[in-house]
Amino acid sequence: MSDDSRPDADADLNAAALAYHETPRPGKTGVEITKPAATQRDLSLAYTPGVAEPVRRIHADAQAAYRYTNRGNLVAVITDGTAVLGLGNVGALAGKPVMEGKAVLFKRFADIDVFDIEVDAETPEAFIETVVRIAPTFGGINLEDLAAPHCFDVEQALIERLDIPVFHDDQHGTAIIIAAGLLNALELQGKALADARIVVLGAGAAGIASIKLLIELGADPQRILTVDRRGVIHSGRDDLNRHKAEIAVETDRRSLEDAFQDADVFIGLSGPDLVTRAMLAAMAPRPIVFALSNPVPEIRPEVAFEVRDDLIMATGRSDYPNQVNNVLGFPFIFRGALDVRASRINNAMCIAAVHALKDLTREPVPASVLEAYGLDALTRGPDYIIPKPLDPRLRDTVSAAVAKAAIASGVARA
Amino acid sequence: MSDDSRPDADADLNAAALAYHETPRPGKTGVEITKPAATQRDLSLAYTPGVAEPVRRIHADAQAAYRYTNRGNLVAVITDGTAVLGLGNVGALAGKPVMEGKAVLFKRFADIDVFDIEVDAETPEAFIETVVRIAPTFGGINLEDLAAPHCFDVEQALIERLDIPVFHDDQHGTAIIIAAGLLNALELQGKALADARIVVLGAGAAGIASIKLLIELGADPQRILTVDRRGVIHSGRDDLNRHKAEIAVETDRRSLEDAFQDADVFIGLSGPDLVTRAMLAAMAPRPIVFALSNPVPEIRPEVAFEVRDDLIMATGRSDYPNQVNNVLGFPFIFRGALDVRASRINNAMCIAAVHALKDLTREPVPASVLEAYGLDALTRGPDYIIPKPLDPRLRDTVSAAVAKAAIASGVARA
Repeated sequence: MSDDSRPDADADLNAAALAYHETPRPGKTGVEITKPAATQRDLSLAYTPGVAEPVRRIHADAQAAYRYTNRGNLVAVITDGTAVLGLGNVGALAGKPVMEGKAVLFKRFADIDVFDIEVDAETPEAFIETVVRIAPTFGGINLEDLAAPHCFDVEQALIERLDIPVFHDDQHGTAIIIAAGLLNALELQGKALADARIVVLGAGAAGIASIKLLIELGADPQRILTVDRRGVIHSGRDDLNRHKAEIAVETDRRSLEDAFQDADVFIGLSGPDLVTRAMLAAMAPRPIVFALSNPVPEIRPEVAFEVRDDLIMATGRSDYPNQVNNVLGFPFIFRGALDVRASRINNAMCIAAVHALKDLTREPVPASVLEAYGLDALTRGPDYIIPKPLDPRLRDTVSAAVAKAAIASGVARA
Repeated sequence: MSDDSRPDADADLNAAALAYHETPRPGKTGVEITKPAATQRDLSLAYTPGVAEPVRRIHADAQAAYRYTNRGNLVAVITDGTAVLGLGNVGALAGKPVMEGKAVLFKRFADIDVFDIEVDAETPEAFIETVVRIAPTFGGINLEDLAAPHCFDVEQALIERLDIPVFHDDQHGTAIIIAAGLLNALELQGKALADARIVVLGAGAAGIASIKLLIELGADPQRILTVDRRGVIHSGRDDLNRHKAEIAVETDRRSLEDAFQDADVFIGLSGPDLVTRAMLAAMAPRPIVFALSNPVPEIRPEVAFEVRDDLIMATGRSDYPNQVNNVLGFPFIFRGALDVRASRINNAMCIAAVHALKDLTREPVPASVLEAYGLDALTRGPDYIIPKPLDPRLRDTVSAAVAKAAIASGVARA
């Protein structure tokens, strides 16, 4: 994911971003007092002696923490700094601007309070222990920018050990948005998920989670070819970790070129310009291409549409139609989970989010959204298979669907 | 520290405190966005793609975190829940209202952002490891409500392992306010600290730290008698932990009564009503009594002044003169330390805070302070040996003194 391709634009963006982060005060979030704190009386309620009674109540019943503290609206965005953006293992501290940025998005879109927490952990086990120990602070845990494959085991261990939602957004958040867009694209192209030949390039956190979610939704595991740096992940390979072995298929295809032959769907979670015109030309009629490498896609839309015009395409960029943007998911998934005090975020809740996002594109778009994007109209079609991030309906729609699924699946506690 | 003595008043306070904590939303703090976050452009600076450049800068130079993230104004208020208020080992989660309350005070008095962090640690070592691992998140660590004696070792280990300020407020914060008040009281009573016979009741975090600070300030270690539940801590006892052994003295005094004989100063950090009229009567002329058990002091002022009128007295309560209140210290000590990016809070900085607090009582009090407390006048004297918590001058005065001491002692980095 290089972003050196447009040096002037990048230099402008970088300068603006540094200024944004630095002035008028460093960083992007702060803490605010939500109760009166002016007078001596106020302070006697906020701190001693008044604070003693809430302590006693929580000591008697842990659930009282949701009545008397910030816990119920507080999510930790936690990283170990091992896979920050496309920059790799830059360490915990260097990940801080990303975690703070995520806090901004949680607050902006779902009024969720976030503490960004950067963990300098020697091992994944040390990271797990740390998160478990500080978990009483929070109502939910959003894991961020953990490298694969340890991200899978870390998430699983935390889900098992904690009774609050734990969600690795780089896996499931991305998977949910991809699935929502893909279901719409398949409908528009007249294809069924169960029959679709799917190529996934990139077997990291997002790739593997997307495959699993698509299978949950009805995709045929034998028709999904995953490709990593060494080629197609097939059952004859002896270099696969446990997570890749799970998604290996029996096939004689070996290269990315092989995989593309007659494919209906391409999902790229890899790097810039890895897909050629020839590959695209070899796809089945009415193909779907999600080229999500950011900022430079696996194939640029202007190139892709030169090669064929029967395409539906999505990218990770905001300057093309159909942006796959995680902000469409995580704020509302957590909002829904927190609203019903869910003990976890399960498959049913993720699938509910997929359908809520997918279905929202069928509804008439409010004028405010058209205005925000400078558009005259927006109706479901090849250029609108995914809702727009600034659509204010997302919050109620997606959150409510997730909360309802939590209740129906028995993980809600309020 | 029972607070069952005034059942009606307590019931009113408790009801008000629960309502305060619960409505209109649970808890007392939230997170706010400090940068524009309305438009797509704003969000592209706050998160991807803009956030990548600050990440790169911090990866190249860790100090850049102070330019581009919230770190430089962010303090963790961290507990393991082992000594919450006077309620004891109620566990990490039940300590949350206290930690949030401390966050309110940090923000209210010094505009410092605080994440309250409740750590469920099996051992002090596990707690230490956890704090070390999450430390990249923060510009400073305020330890809170850790039990003695492990609080001493935990603080020492963290100071050694981290390059940001680590401060156990229950130790040093309390000690600093006591010392400031005591220096004023001694002057007013015409006594020298070096000659004063001092009795300290309670050998926990605050007691031991106060003794050490008073010795730093010139008190004679041989004239300080510390008393715990088993009586005077003398060098013949074989039941002393390392921390108590350090403050043991050679003496034939054994009981609290013995200790009071001819004492110039009493500092109570223990429990309600433990000091009798007879003990008070046995003190030297012009004695000083800091009865800091809260809410019920070791001896009530109305009783104490019946016994003798040559007394200067302080308590932990806001409804008597001379309240020893930690809020006079920690917000400004951290403010000063953060302002110069100090690597630690050392003795020089604590002593600077003592003198700044002490000297502030000699300055004319602003009208706003008199108004806040409903007073006509306030001049240094037996009823004004410690500044008032709502005095707005505290912030600049104490913070500046601490920052200056940090610079002079070579621990400032900005």
